[in-house]
Amino acid sequence: MQVSFTQADIAAIAAPIRTVGATTEVIRGIASLGSAKAGDISFLGNPKYRPAVASTHASIVLLPPDYAGKPGPNQVHMVVDNPSVALARLCSRVEQTLWPRPAPGIHPTAVVAPGASVAASATVGPLCVVEPGARIGEGAHLQSQVFVGRGSAVGRDCWLMPGVVICAECTLGDRVRLHPGVVVGSDGFGYEFVSGRHEKVPQVGTVVVGDDVEIGSNSTIDRSRFERTVVGEGTKIDNLVQVGHNVVIGRHCLICAQTGIAGSVTLQDYVVVAGQVGIVGHLTVGTGAMIAAQSGVKDDIPPKTSVWGTPSLPLLLAQKISILKNRLPELFKRVEALEEKAGGKRKARKG
Amino acid sequence: MQVSFTQADIAAIAAPIRTVGATTEVIRGIASLGSAKAGDISFLGNPKYRPAVASTHASIVLLPPDYAGKPGPNQVHMVVDNPSVALARLCSRVEQTLWPRPAPGIHPTAVVAPGASVAASATVGPLCVVEPGARIGEGAHLQSQVFVGRGSAVGRDCWLMPGVVICAECTLGDRVRLHPGVVVGSDGFGYEFVSGRHEKVPQVGTVVVGDDVEIGSNSTIDRSRFERTVVGEGTKIDNLVQVGHNVVIGRHCLICAQTGIAGSVTLQDYVVVAGQVGIVGHLTVGTGAMIAAQSGVKDDIPPKTSVWGTPSLPLLLAQKISILKNRLPELFKRVEALEEKAGGKRKARKG
Amino acid sequence: MQVSFTQADIAAIAAPIRTVGATTEVIRGIASLGSAKAGDISFLGNPKYRPAVASTHASIVLLPPDYAGKPGPNQVHMVVDNPSVALARLCSRVEQTLWPRPAPGIHPTAVVAPGASVAASATVGPLCVVEPGARIGEGAHLQSQVFVGRGSAVGRDCWLMPGVVICAECTLGDRVRLHPGVVVGSDGFGYEFVSGRHEKVPQVGTVVVGDDVEIGSNSTIDRSRFERTVVGEGTKIDNLVQVGHNVVIGRHCLICAQTGIAGSVTLQDYVVVAGQVGIVGHLTVGTGAMIAAQSGVKDDIPPKTSVWGTPSLPLLLAQKISILKNRLPELFKRVEALEEKAGGKRKARKG
Repeated sequence: MQVSFTQADIAAIAAPIRTVGATTEVIRGIASLGSAKAGDISFLGNPKYRPAVASTHASIVLLPPDYAGKPGPNQVHMVVDNPSVALARLCSRVEQTLWPRPAPGIHPTAVVAPGASVAASATVGPLCVVEPGARIGEGAHLQSQVFVGRGSAVGRDCWLMPGVVICAECTLGDRVRLHPGVVVGSDGFGYEFVSGRHEKVPQVGTVVVGDDVEIGSNSTIDRSRFERTVVGEGTKIDNLVQVGHNVVIGRHCLICAQTGIAGSVTLQDYVVVAGQVGIVGHLTVGTGAMIAAQSGVKDDIPPKTSVWGTPSLPLLLAQKISILKNRLPELFKRVEALEEKAGGKRKARKG
Repeated sequence: MQVSFTQADIAAIAAPIRTVGATTEVIRGIASLGSAKAGDISFLGNPKYRPAVASTHASIVLLPPDYAGKPGPNQVHMVVDNPSVALARLCSRVEQTLWPRPAPGIHPTAVVAPGASVAASATVGPLCVVEPGARIGEGAHLQSQVFVGRGSAVGRDCWLMPGVVICAECTLGDRVRLHPGVVVGSDGFGYEFVSGRHEKVPQVGTVVVGDDVEIGSNSTIDRSRFERTVVGEGTKIDNLVQVGHNVVIGRHCLICAQTGIAGSVTLQDYVVVAGQVGIVGHLTVGTGAMIAAQSGVKDDIPPKTSVWGTPSLPLLLAQKISILKNRLPELFKRVEALEEKAGGKRKARKG
Repeated sequence: MQVSFTQADIAAIAAPIRTVGATTEVIRGIASLGSAKAGDISFLGNPKYRPAVASTHASIVLLPPDYAGKPGPNQVHMVVDNPSVALARLCSRVEQTLWPRPAPGIHPTAVVAPGASVAASATVGPLCVVEPGARIGEGAHLQSQVFVGRGSAVGRDCWLMPGVVICAECTLGDRVRLHPGVVVGSDGFGYEFVSGRHEKVPQVGTVVVGDDVEIGSNSTIDRSRFERTVVGEGTKIDNLVQVGHNVVIGRHCLICAQTGIAGSVTLQDYVVVAGQVGIVGHLTVGTGAMIAAQSGVKDDIPPKTSVWGTPSLPLLLAQKISILKNRLPELFKRVEALEEKAGGKRKARKG
């Protein structure tokens, strides 16, 4: 990133409660306390890094109200309510320079079908394809090489990054952000076994993605057999996630990378799914449930429950069993000792 | 989907044995019994939903011959041999309206090399690239932004969806359906460690995909080191699946999402692999074997065997061990009780 | 592949120590000993295939110095120092015919922004997009439908295959090879939970990929929150791998398919990660460590340590526990026998 902020610029963004020290450095980078050098801004977010503040070379440090140390020479301490939030505000400003709002309009190399509608303030970038009947909302941005299929709708201020594919008849809400290579609306995986062959069950449903959803690179969301696959408002999905047909994901869920959700699963609201989890088809995961990494879920999960393992169990039980499993060598020895004491003869066993 | 069927249209497609009742509704959607409303068609597939027929709001319900109830007002019961099959036939009709057969021809924005051959009835959509020596068969459809590399062959009536990449010298049979983002023929993962560096082992083999294969979004099939990676006739592969170099997959297999098959594995015919399975290189999985979800397979699997777990074991044994593992807290207590009874002194242990 | 080598051509490439026999066949394929036919070249790499040499139908066989057998009629034995290396040298030659070096220049259908710089010897293929401020190095090859974002740099002799996406402000070293569908620089997965919603933490860092890195199809490398996500020189990454934001991968690592590395993990040099591994955020994996397939790593791994399992343990311990776990049915019976012998009454238990 190529940024350039003076101390005064930073103060205007971070709105500090008080400022100690001054610097002549122009801020050109953001860095953690340990790796920052002159010209960087840094911050104290996690309290465990508190000792690192005294030795950081950052020119400006965002600090919480209870921090008591003094800045070094040519260094500034800006005390703010919440250093993480202040930094995020600065990063938002940087983001605008990374990805400036493109001018509205349709790039001459884009292929927009006569029957498609593109809002006046939308941007359709180079080499995009918009099929007949598709509708692109106000302020939406199809960045480059995006495909929007027949009859699909892209809401206001959506951002579809390079290589995104929206198949036919799908709907995206407003402010949806799809990272490169995301596929929305590919066929669900459904076959009937007839006369020794897997005959395709046509997948003629659709996908509905709510407002403020974000989906990570190369993730795939299958259309339903009929009816709708749903991703609820505000839900965030990481990279390389698979969402099967007829899945209904609630609002404000977090789904980490490489998780797979089989067909017809329901996730209620505020569910958190860690990475590489697999969820068997037709289950319900209750509101606020948490599923730890690499779990294999094969039963419904009640609301506000944390689970782990394959098959998954309540988190504390799963952790206990995991620890006891690691003590199996000891347990085998203890049983052997008991057997010897009991005088019973038993066949020698390997291991 | 935007469909519109009268009762007579549906009867013509479903060919009912008998029809009870009548409706003036035009059918505009397909829905499950529980969620259907007026204007929808529904069906009784799974017997466990039989009680839901009486209360459904669907305007037309497809029912099996042994169903005895009566339709409500403005509702039709159509009795058919197999409601699922009748519905699939209707869905096939809907599918044609979702994705109408495109007109043959090469879109003016496609880049077809002089040395490539495209059959007269094939469709090469916008912004596709077809390299020299590639051959596109009769009725094949490269939908949009597809890449077909030098010397590759795409069979009759294939459908390659947006963003599909076929690398050089690969072969697709007839009626192959590749979902968006599928990559066929990328290099296998092979290196030799020489003088502290991983030197690339060139991957100069190819990939051969049989007739009637379907591959899900963003799945990847690597070309072999030399010789051929093979996906057999009628095999169906879900999304985000990885098939390594030199893998040979037989006919009519099912491979669910996010499974990874390492190099030189052989799957014989009719193998079923559930989601997120990993198979170690150079193994053979016998005809009709089944591998349960998230298994890690590191030994050959005999034909018609079901396995589960990491490392995988015969299914019933794996399930037994999984249950016993969950009883470890109990087992530790029982051993402790025995030790106390035996009067033996032993060191206190945590956990 | 369409190749054609005479015996003399092969001898020129393989530089044999000695040659026994002669063949009139033109070499048109490479095959393993067991499947080779007349017109193929084969080789003895792995000693366990030694017996297969006598019965192979290959026209030319590359053999190690200690092989003593005689060739059949119209068959050649070429004795070389290292048959695998000799074959790799031949495959490199074949590779050049598969993917001939393209002519330099910008394809007329590519969209190269005025503010971008493309070296004179670089090739920008059909339907690529190069945004303002991007720099494409000497000899680099953007094959087809590639995207290179604003301000990104692609080094000398890089090869970006169809559908690769490089987001803004990322840097690739020299000779980097990215397979189809790779995404470099998508946003890391970071949110703050504010007032019942997940508010996006802007991801304004970048990705730096070192020289001689190779990344497999549809893998995704996220940009850092601020600072840099790093893939070190000479590291090789397989297909469908996820690398989270702020990850730092050292030099000459191998990372197999479908592995996921969560945010802020450090891999030091020469780490080997097998397939479908998950690594929890903020950990350090030491130089030369090896992580076995499907492991779930949740603690730092010391240098030169091999681990396996979820959660991962030192390899030998994990293997021992895995074996003991499979003996749980036996252990339960042994404890039961002890209980009966001890005469203690205990409640009947299921299982």
